[in-house]
Amino acid sequence: MRVVCFGLGPIGCEIARVAASRPGVEIVGAVDMDPTKVGRSLRDVVGAASEVVVSASFDEVAAAGSVDALLHSTMSSLPDVWDQVAGPVGKGVSVISTCEELSYPWHIRGGTARDMDAAARASGARLLGTGVNPGFVMDILPLVLTSPCQEVTRVHVERVVDAAGRRGPLQRKVGAGLSPDAFDAMVSAGTVRHVGLMESAWMIVDGLGWQVDEWEESIEPVLAEQEMRTDVLTIGPGQVAGVRQTIRALHQERERLQMDLSMYVGAADPHDRVCVSGSPDIDVLVRGGMHGDRATAGMVLNALPPLLLRPPGLATMLDLLPVRCADGRGA
Amino acid sequence: MRVVCFGLGPIGCEIARVAASRPGVEIVGAVDMDPTKVGRSLRDVVGAASEVVVSASFDEVAAAGSVDALLHSTMSSLPDVWDQVAGPVGKGVSVISTCEELSYPWHIRGGTARDMDAAARASGARLLGTGVNPGFVMDILPLVLTSPCQEVTRVHVERVVDAAGRRGPLQRKVGAGLSPDAFDAMVSAGTVRHVGLMESAWMIVDGLGWQVDEWEESIEPVLAEQEMRTDVLTIGPGQVAGVRQTIRALHQERERLQMDLSMYVGAADPHDRVCVSGSPDIDVLVRGGMHGDRATAGMVLNALPPLLLRPPGLATMLDLLPVRCADGRGA
Repeated sequence: MRVVCFGLGPIGCEIARVAASRPGVEIVGAVDMDPTKVGRSLRDVVGAASEVVVSASFDEVAAAGSVDALLHSTMSSLPDVWDQVAGPVGKGVSVISTCEELSYPWHIRGGTARDMDAAARASGARLLGTGVNPGFVMDILPLVLTSPCQEVTRVHVERVVDAAGRRGPLQRKVGAGLSPDAFDAMVSAGTVRHVGLMESAWMIVDGLGWQVDEWEESIEPVLAEQEMRTDVLTIGPGQVAGVRQTIRALHQERERLQMDLSMYVGAADPHDRVCVSGSPDIDVLVRGGMHGDRATAGMVLNALPPLLLRPPGLATMLDLLPVRCADGRGA
Repeated sequence: MRVVCFGLGPIGCEIARVAASRPGVEIVGAVDMDPTKVGRSLRDVVGAASEVVVSASFDEVAAAGSVDALLHSTMSSLPDVWDQVAGPVGKGVSVISTCEELSYPWHIRGGTARDMDAAARASGARLLGTGVNPGFVMDILPLVLTSPCQEVTRVHVERVVDAAGRRGPLQRKVGAGLSPDAFDAMVSAGTVRHVGLMESAWMIVDGLGWQVDEWEESIEPVLAEQEMRTDVLTIGPGQVAGVRQTIRALHQERERLQMDLSMYVGAADPHDRVCVSGSPDIDVLVRGGMHGDRATAGMVLNALPPLLLRPPGLATMLDLLPVRCADGRGA
């Protein structure tokens, strides 16, 4: 498989390193807009086992020959991403992206999703948004875990991440080091939200064939009880250590789904947990939790072969892992 | 989907009850060779919400109209099962079976598997063996859990089942109540073995694209320390409470895979556990374990819709849930 690495931020670099080390995958190009990276080799820029030189645009790469897929990691906003990849998709190049909004865009970015799907079908390309979250641990893993169930009445998904072990941009994204007031302002501006949690919730709801009458969302700061230092910032007592974000989906006033995501510096017991209420009940604990950045890069490479076997168009992880308990009872 | 329930033992009855309660599934026939069941309704025989009358053979059912799939649960031996379903398969009827040897027959029952695959392709039928074990908890779940991994170096799968909570035939199958000598005789005769563990091991090995130089298998009794009673038998101190069966797969003298299955009366901490060594490591605990009989019936019904979307032929759960870390490093 001939791939182009598009976007060389922290996750994109990780993807490039995995792609370079994987037999059967050949990196034939790399794209990033950062002028300090353009013109240098992937080995030099990201430490990947590849001498491919970073280009400023896909058009320069494409001149070098056929490309099977873009491994894309730049932004969370689907319209922005579509601006970046519409050209390659029009030429029949498939795209796997870590763009959170692409993971399940049908409800939240329906217009862009339909445009992308139509363009991909017309050119013979496949499109997929994936990663560890959204894309696996809070959506597909719970769905796959329902596959031995006779019926499912409720799903609870919980993820606790110690942001201290994650990249600097993520620490800042969760509000670590802010005052509570500054955090509230970020919440109002919509910039502290983990993009993808609602996409994960929709994947579960649609995957199980449920109806939802009411959604409830909350975003709260987790405050530091004592001073904490990470490699990029210091958090004083009473300052924000990170964020807790929850989503609830109700049908006929009964809770069917609860998603509970906490990402903060100093989380004592990082883990992922999935509790399925049904027949039988299923209670699964991922000890220590799944490492976000490394797991996202792994997922991108592992989803590539089954994606390329699918019919053209915009796919989601629901299509790639289709066994689950859609028990037909609606909600 | 118009289905026929074929085989009304404990698992077959559970499947019939789930099928009867599931919207979109219509039971149009039922088959069992037991003369005490033939001629009675499914409601009467198994408590399912269905007035369908049990027939002694599939031919009597088929006269009643078209059938999309058999939900089949009779025996563990693939040649015996093929004798039962070859007729329907020849008529284009798909089959989902709990036959353990059908879960991944290519290595162990290759000749029969090729015959079945060819017949299904010729008639347009789909065939699948599934259940909770083999079919999910010791094979597909570990494979799906590798899907966020950049590489996988070792997989450890452990299942501990308290046989006291399971059906009587299973308690006897694991040797509960036997003397150690009688257990050894059963091991020599091959009747105490959990059929399907080697199939699960092959699924993992092939799913990850590994090579194996050496297989090691062991079957040992678990002895009772004190007297225990279940609803069907009494076990004295020093008698057999059940079985522990392990499989190891080695490549270049290094252990890549370990499967460890214990099924005994009085197991204090029933659970399933999957440990993936790689990047990142993944350590998953299913608290309490997945209930075998109920989960197997759920899996059969949940695998049916995606199976019927596949091309004709013999499929395995590897085909239905195809995302995993096949990192291309062989072994």
